[in-house]
Amino acid sequence: MLNDATPEFIAGLVEALGQDLVIADSEKYLKEPRGRWTGRGTVLAPRNTEAVAAIVKACSEAGVGIVPYGGGTGVVGGQVSGEGAVPVVLSLERMNSIREVFPTENVLVCDAGCILADVQAAAADVGRLFPLSLASEGTARIGGLLGTNAGGLNVLRYGNARAQVLGLEVVTAAGEIWNGLTRLRKDNTGYDLRDLLIGAEGTLGIITAAALKLVPQPVSNGTAVMVVPSPKAALDLLALAQARIGEGISGFELMNRQGLRFMEETGVEFAKPFEELPEWSVLIDLGLAEGQSPQDALEGLFVAAMEQGLVSDGAVAQSEAQRAAFWSIRENIPEGNRRIGSISSHDISIPLSLIPDYIAEAPGVLAKVGDFSINCFGHLGDGNLHYNVFPAEGRTRDEYDHLKTAVKDTIHDLVAKYEGSFSAEHGVGRFKVADLEKYADPQKLAMMRAIKQALDPKGIMNPGAVLRPL
Amino acid sequence: MLNDATPEFIAGLVEALGQDLVIADSEKYLKEPRGRWTGRGTVLAPRNTEAVAAIVKACSEAGVGIVPYGGGTGVVGGQVSGEGAVPVVLSLERMNSIREVFPTENVLVCDAGCILADVQAAAADVGRLFPLSLASEGTARIGGLLGTNAGGLNVLRYGNARAQVLGLEVVTAAGEIWNGLTRLRKDNTGYDLRDLLIGAEGTLGIITAAALKLVPQPVSNGTAVMVVPSPKAALDLLALAQARIGEGISGFELMNRQGLRFMEETGVEFAKPFEELPEWSVLIDLGLAEGQSPQDALEGLFVAAMEQGLVSDGAVAQSEAQRAAFWSIRENIPEGNRRIGSISSHDISIPLSLIPDYIAEAPGVLAKVGDFSINCFGHLGDGNLHYNVFPAEGRTRDEYDHLKTAVKDTIHDLVAKYEGSFSAEHGVGRFKVADLEKYADPQKLAMMRAIKQALDPKGIMNPGAVLRPL
Repeated sequence: MLNDATPEFIAGLVEALGQDLVIADSEKYLKEPRGRWTGRGTVLAPRNTEAVAAIVKACSEAGVGIVPYGGGTGVVGGQVSGEGAVPVVLSLERMNSIREVFPTENVLVCDAGCILADVQAAAADVGRLFPLSLASEGTARIGGLLGTNAGGLNVLRYGNARAQVLGLEVVTAAGEIWNGLTRLRKDNTGYDLRDLLIGAEGTLGIITAAALKLVPQPVSNGTAVMVVPSPKAALDLLALAQARIGEGISGFELMNRQGLRFMEETGVEFAKPFEELPEWSVLIDLGLAEGQSPQDALEGLFVAAMEQGLVSDGAVAQSEAQRAAFWSIRENIPEGNRRIGSISSHDISIPLSLIPDYIAEAPGVLAKVGDFSINCFGHLGDGNLHYNVFPAEGRTRDEYDHLKTAVKDTIHDLVAKYEGSFSAEHGVGRFKVADLEKYADPQKLAMMRAIKQALDPKGIMNPGAVLRPL
Repeated sequence: MLNDATPEFIAGLVEALGQDLVIADSEKYLKEPRGRWTGRGTVLAPRNTEAVAAIVKACSEAGVGIVPYGGGTGVVGGQVSGEGAVPVVLSLERMNSIREVFPTENVLVCDAGCILADVQAAAADVGRLFPLSLASEGTARIGGLLGTNAGGLNVLRYGNARAQVLGLEVVTAAGEIWNGLTRLRKDNTGYDLRDLLIGAEGTLGIITAAALKLVPQPVSNGTAVMVVPSPKAALDLLALAQARIGEGISGFELMNRQGLRFMEETGVEFAKPFEELPEWSVLIDLGLAEGQSPQDALEGLFVAAMEQGLVSDGAVAQSEAQRAAFWSIRENIPEGNRRIGSISSHDISIPLSLIPDYIAEAPGVLAKVGDFSINCFGHLGDGNLHYNVFPAEGRTRDEYDHLKTAVKDTIHDLVAKYEGSFSAEHGVGRFKVADLEKYADPQKLAMMRAIKQALDPKGIMNPGAVLRPL
């Protein structure tokens, strides 16, 4: 059992680390973006790794919980704790230095409090790309992005957050500093603690800095939208594109007519390259090297795909403005969804070849629960679909309140049948702890609990997130 | 303290699992390739995962150690135990099925006993590439390759073994089966146990099967050898190549004149594209997509590099035969080394930008220890050098016996000064346990020991490898 972070406990930390350690206006730190949960706790913002270690050591001694807070953009409640003893909330926002950039090595070392967009800009300053990219990049911080192993738009080509990291600096649950901030690309000297800490959602230690991998900037980019007769054809188109274009494919996004209709209905502006809104379409994004033409590659792909009956129409962007317009279709789908208002949203993944069967089966299974509209879209190249369920036309969200849980369980059960994941990129947080218990392999859960007990025996690190307190 | 695997214990396993469980001719399993260590133990070869689980459960109950054995090609003694209680040696060679191939998904699922070359062939059969590739690929098995997080020739482009895996099936130290054999590319539901097991060298559990990532086969390949004035110029050439050619660079290997001279001296045949043996040269290998010409890309790179003074001579292979000839230079260097006979060989990595300084400093530091010849070569693109020390010209290896340890310590100390690794791709095994204790961050060691204790509390999994028995 943990203890409350009492005023006396906070006063002791302030005495040791300075008056400005506490952020008085704590409101924004205690709400999560969708307003589902409210947290509690005193917000602390240390200025360096040693101060983080001092706070964790004090919490360990006093048995006080620590909730790590990055940019606050997580959607599964990992950053807010409303139950149990009152914790401290630890924000690394003042630790936001790009420590060093090594262009020759394609490496950037930064504090965990850096905002993603600032890291992207620092990479661009030396002619490199930091490929992690997602909607919240202007707010999300590196520590949170690594703690949750964030996904986003470039996973197909560059992998998720985990794949962008060479080394970490971490404060352990005992308040010690592990200097694992290596820039080495090969180092087989012991267990892979780096990848264990990444995605642990702050439950095993606090990431305070990272050595990140940069990549060469593509020399030229290109984007196309193609109309496909079915999700199966979209997958075959992806395979054809990979065979022809190799690693040059940065994005392969599936879109359904429902999402486009939602945008029309709610007045969200978007480009319409085709006369009618297609039932299924894909956005393909390329980033190529010297001497390659993205337009030629996309046009060649389209011709080959036509011959195989994989596409029925298509448009290749002829300018940067047109590229942006094509991307705006995909990027505005969430805004259309928001304006309609979903009953239940799902961040699922399915083995690629089973996606067509899942998409075919799910509506019938859901129809047994109620009458819905469905918008299925997302990162098809990663097998990651955002499968969002809305009121049927003419009906309102209120009418469905009693069905929310049934919808979620129906989708997650079906995803489990297809050997999929109930959380492809958002993590577990506090929102999906019960799902993890329900769907995870029992041996996996047992090993996770053993590791949690081993590395955080007092249970102070983000208590209640990922695993129920022991 | 562990117990010996007594004849009675083995008899019990045989009764449960069948007479042919034991491989009677155990000689090859108890010697490692360089003849440095001799192991002990009864060799068991189960036919399926359930049998592996039964063996591990029995060993757990009896407190008997288990030494996992893959293809036996490891060079750090991970597969042979000559000390402590007599263990069982567990070979998965009879579990060698390609379970299923999913071309649309770029996934192949196989038993851990599959030989790497067979996996490569199964991928090629469906027009895909399994990019893990190394000298021992005709013998090494997937379980051992993943257990040691093997490196090899394609790491620059595709990453090490860890990067080729989506999911694992594992028998835990308690003899339970964890089914983590997912084919998902995104799954943020809990701790990354997969990457923890990969590279743990069999000390946390037994990998019994894996879901492996395949990639599109390059449409065309090209190879060049270029003469560079210095290691620094080689690194700048790499950056230039990456900016121009992007991910298409599969290999970037550094070669020193000493290695070529060794081959000449000992009668190893190799191609000589230049009139004189160059002091420093690099081999560059490309695999490109549809519509790209590797020859054009390499010739364009050479011209641009000449303008910047990064190369002084070069040759681009004009045929597959010439490609093979160029590769034979690099691939024969180890044979030349073997014929000369090294005093001490080192598999080190250094942050890329520090490599020139390391290469400049090391000979002077070694000269204080004695009079040596040095052959420095390897996977420059990965920061991974094979830094091998030989007798000075006209002297024999015997004269240096008393200096072996001093040479090793000198190199490893210098590597540590440059924030490098004493084992870039070979692992720790039993040979480098003391190095790990000496050079690893204390918090890393503490976390590793806590995890070992948590997942293998009886210490039966590959006892004595990586970590000293607790």
